[in-house]
Amino acid sequence: MPFRAPADEFRFICKHIVPYGDVAATDMFAHADEDVSDAILTEAAKVCDEVLAPLQRNGDLTPAVLENGVVRTSPGFADGFKALAEGGWVSMSGSEEYGGMGLPVTLSTAVNDMMSGACLALQLNPLMSQGQIEALEHHASDEMKALYLPKLASGEWCGTMNLTEAHAGSDVGALSSKATDNGDGTYAVTGQKIFISWADNDFSENVCHLVLARLPDGAPGTKGISLFLVPRHIPDADGNPGEKNSLRVVSLEHKLGLHGSPTAVMSFEGAKGWIVGEKHGGMKAMFTMMNNARLGVGTQGIGTAEAAYQKALEYALDRKQGRSPVEGGTGTIADHADVRRMLTRMKAEIFAARSIEMMNAVALDLAKATGDDGQASRAAFLTPITKAFGTDIGSTVANLGVQVHGGMGFIEETGAAQFVRDVRVTQIYEGTNGIQAMDFVARKMMDGGEMAFRILEETEQCAEEARANFPKMAGAVWSAAENLREATEWLVAQKDMNDRFAGAVPFLFAFARVLGACAHLRAAMVCGPDHARTRLARFYITRMLPEYEAALAEARAGAADLYALTVEDLTA
Amino acid sequence: MPFRAPADEFRFICKHIVPYGDVAATDMFAHADEDVSDAILTEAAKVCDEVLAPLQRNGDLTPAVLENGVVRTSPGFADGFKALAEGGWVSMSGSEEYGGMGLPVTLSTAVNDMMSGACLALQLNPLMSQGQIEALEHHASDEMKALYLPKLASGEWCGTMNLTEAHAGSDVGALSSKATDNGDGTYAVTGQKIFISWADNDFSENVCHLVLARLPDGAPGTKGISLFLVPRHIPDADGNPGEKNSLRVVSLEHKLGLHGSPTAVMSFEGAKGWIVGEKHGGMKAMFTMMNNARLGVGTQGIGTAEAAYQKALEYALDRKQGRSPVEGGTGTIADHADVRRMLTRMKAEIFAARSIEMMNAVALDLAKATGDDGQASRAAFLTPITKAFGTDIGSTVANLGVQVHGGMGFIEETGAAQFVRDVRVTQIYEGTNGIQAMDFVARKMMDGGEMAFRILEETEQCAEEARANFPKMAGAVWSAAENLREATEWLVAQKDMNDRFAGAVPFLFAFARVLGACAHLRAAMVCGPDHARTRLARFYITRMLPEYEAALAEARAGAADLYALTVEDLTA
Repeated sequence: MPFRAPADEFRFICKHIVPYGDVAATDMFAHADEDVSDAILTEAAKVCDEVLAPLQRNGDLTPAVLENGVVRTSPGFADGFKALAEGGWVSMSGSEEYGGMGLPVTLSTAVNDMMSGACLALQLNPLMSQGQIEALEHHASDEMKALYLPKLASGEWCGTMNLTEAHAGSDVGALSSKATDNGDGTYAVTGQKIFISWADNDFSENVCHLVLARLPDGAPGTKGISLFLVPRHIPDADGNPGEKNSLRVVSLEHKLGLHGSPTAVMSFEGAKGWIVGEKHGGMKAMFTMMNNARLGVGTQGIGTAEAAYQKALEYALDRKQGRSPVEGGTGTIADHADVRRMLTRMKAEIFAARSIEMMNAVALDLAKATGDDGQASRAAFLTPITKAFGTDIGSTVANLGVQVHGGMGFIEETGAAQFVRDVRVTQIYEGTNGIQAMDFVARKMMDGGEMAFRILEETEQCAEEARANFPKMAGAVWSAAENLREATEWLVAQKDMNDRFAGAVPFLFAFARVLGACAHLRAAMVCGPDHARTRLARFYITRMLPEYEAALAEARAGAADLYALTVEDLTA
Repeated sequence: MPFRAPADEFRFICKHIVPYGDVAATDMFAHADEDVSDAILTEAAKVCDEVLAPLQRNGDLTPAVLENGVVRTSPGFADGFKALAEGGWVSMSGSEEYGGMGLPVTLSTAVNDMMSGACLALQLNPLMSQGQIEALEHHASDEMKALYLPKLASGEWCGTMNLTEAHAGSDVGALSSKATDNGDGTYAVTGQKIFISWADNDFSENVCHLVLARLPDGAPGTKGISLFLVPRHIPDADGNPGEKNSLRVVSLEHKLGLHGSPTAVMSFEGAKGWIVGEKHGGMKAMFTMMNNARLGVGTQGIGTAEAAYQKALEYALDRKQGRSPVEGGTGTIADHADVRRMLTRMKAEIFAARSIEMMNAVALDLAKATGDDGQASRAAFLTPITKAFGTDIGSTVANLGVQVHGGMGFIEETGAAQFVRDVRVTQIYEGTNGIQAMDFVARKMMDGGEMAFRILEETEQCAEEARANFPKMAGAVWSAAENLREATEWLVAQKDMNDRFAGAVPFLFAFARVLGACAHLRAAMVCGPDHARTRLARFYITRMLPEYEAALAEARAGAADLYALTVEDLTA
């Protein structure tokens, strides 16, 4: 059985777990009512199942290669991309004025999740374009928008992000790429960028690079960085790709996974570029793109987890081994307690992460549609959780999938190991999960924890509502939220940021665990006691939620003990 | 800086954490006193650093291949194996009578750990021979011992284990390989075996397969299985490899990692074999080999973790990124709290697992040297912990290593990802970690938990001794041991094995976490308050030990809630 995109799951989450109804009730998204969103999910699922999923192994077995300076993509990827482009999937949430579908990010996130599960390596391509569309919509001139956005939305052209350099990774401000004013409204961009996803392909007319570089009068650090749009081919007077720009793909990386996605070293050699946004204001524009991309990357983790789960479940239900330990069992390894435990854990983890992801997306849509700063803050608060937790569970679920397969999991033909390899980078790119956690406990707590407390209050309220019908589960969720509130109070009281950073990763994890429990509890309330979702909620709350406690113990341990262990101690 | 085998770490553990002195005090191992063991560790470390470590990437980049029925091993592997064989490393703990060094398993385990870190793929080869030597010493006839053991010990011949078949993995008893009596003291063995590690090579004169098969009068299931020694080349009258036997390597697997180790499908086509042990007593002989191999596989996980740690630390101390957040820091990413946290966690995890591994090995040696059943039971009890915990931390530490590397971790040339790929199978082979956990909560608790309680008493006693100097750490360890004791009482009271199995994996993990804490606490007691090991102990006990609690919550959750979630629920 091949991958089946879980459209119903998103229907359930939109209807019962997150307030998607509020999104569809806004003027901006009134056209995206339940009928329309249903149809969109159905159509996207069809593309996933029929077009993308069959390409998943191709990318792995026949990686993209660089031949004479030209990237040759994996078999079928060109047609696959064409189908995505023609279906309008590249710019689902882009503005209709510029060729997008103008749909809520909630829907594009659901679709990104499903498409990641179907074929992560190819899905990464439109994800890059989506980030670029978002950045240009917010920061480009009208002229630039008119020229580039329709081409990106239609998939005729593709977009990339060029941030990282060999000595400027997490520390973007250390970059050494330069730009000089050509005096004709254009700039000459020079520098070498690394880890450029989908830097080139053989199926789009043009590739548009968003490149961070420093103007001569740019201050050191992030404050002096500007953003430039540097197309592979310079648009001619009619807006068609004309002369080749002075840039090239130097090499492609040999990676652990995601082989279908070409990851390049790019060289810009006085390439012609146009500034996006203000001079020295590149980081602001970049952050627009990165926030979008961080949600998108979290989504990649969750989508991959779904695919790994489906594959493991299918294998388990086919594999007979030993006597069934339960009466009336299936006679397969899915009857064995530990296999059942792993499968159930996978499913519970995916629902938790997916609910957070959708909560995040809904807040983005409400912020955009209503201009409510509270919703914008909520979205910003949830983004590092979606990114880090979504990708962490992507890896853990994929690894559980391998384990369910036993020896076959280690054999590449099975396909289970590919998920582990492909998804691993999602914990790293778009800001490592460590960086996400730092962002979470520092920038996202600059409000003194206000947003954290608000979300925890909602969690406690959810637990109160559930108490009558599910006293045990409700009690566990309420206590967890309360402990998390106390830990958050401790955290925001820490003036020395290192005391926060020393436990940032476990703190973020604890927050995700508790939010996930709240989502499961909501599902139980909606479905009632005799429902699969309620049984899954009980599994999560009994067996997985308690993990937040150890995470909080570490989160509150502070920096002193950590730094007491010197570099010499580590080397000894 | 290349891999450096951690000989000093084993010296410390042998001297202070585990009672290696008791081993050297026995008549059997009197020759393996501190001077000798020191010299052995020094010499082995030299082989690791100079001979094996340089081969690590070769195996990955140039996998073993099957050409015209012949396995061609990776570049340098033949010379590497020759060096191991000539150094006597293949049969360190084999009997001196048959060419072994007669050394304690404690020392061979330390050496296996170091060699795994240096080059896991090649190290797996002698590990297989060690298991075979152990099985033959216990179960073979004197004639067979005299013929085969010296050849295996010298490395002239290599040994393999042939258990698994396509439909008989965890359920060995389902195998369909057959053996018939040739009437001349030999048997004709027919069947197909899969996942055969180092099934063949191009550097040993002969390869000796231990094959499980069923005689015509063998009962169904494990009780009717016999063990046969089936050499690739049949020894002639002088004991030299003669006629080629009727067996062949059908194909090699394309695996996630461990590419330097050929994993084969083997076909035995009426191949000539000799029975090992009693008719239908194959499982008993196999278990001798498997217990040895399970300790060995746990060791592989820990050794790989060490190598991953060293590589990550080296990278972190070289990589400059952003301002150092601490005064007088190194200016590298190792100063950043989360990187420091990851590195420290890796180191703390390795020490914990390694202490358990050595505790396990010492019990094996004491059992052998003194005939003490209590020591034998202790070794048996610890084996699934060493195997499952050692390999689980192998994967988690290797994954942390990738994360420390950031984007470079995803690039294969870095070498960090290879550890993740290579070590992944150790959680699966020699009985998946799920199987280990089932063994732990069922077979190893058949004594009503007696051994568990004894070990927990020792842990509490250790905490009591530490209370004066380290009240906080001691209190945490004591409480953890006490909670684990209660959980063990609950566990052994469960009559329905499914109630144990449903939480077996987290229960085993909790046990390991607590034993690891005890080892760290012992190190602190030995070293005093102002020592790196004490700071590491504080990190482990404050930040990692608390994880046992959530594990126990899951361990005690029982089977009802788990099986309440039906297969239909999972498929929905």
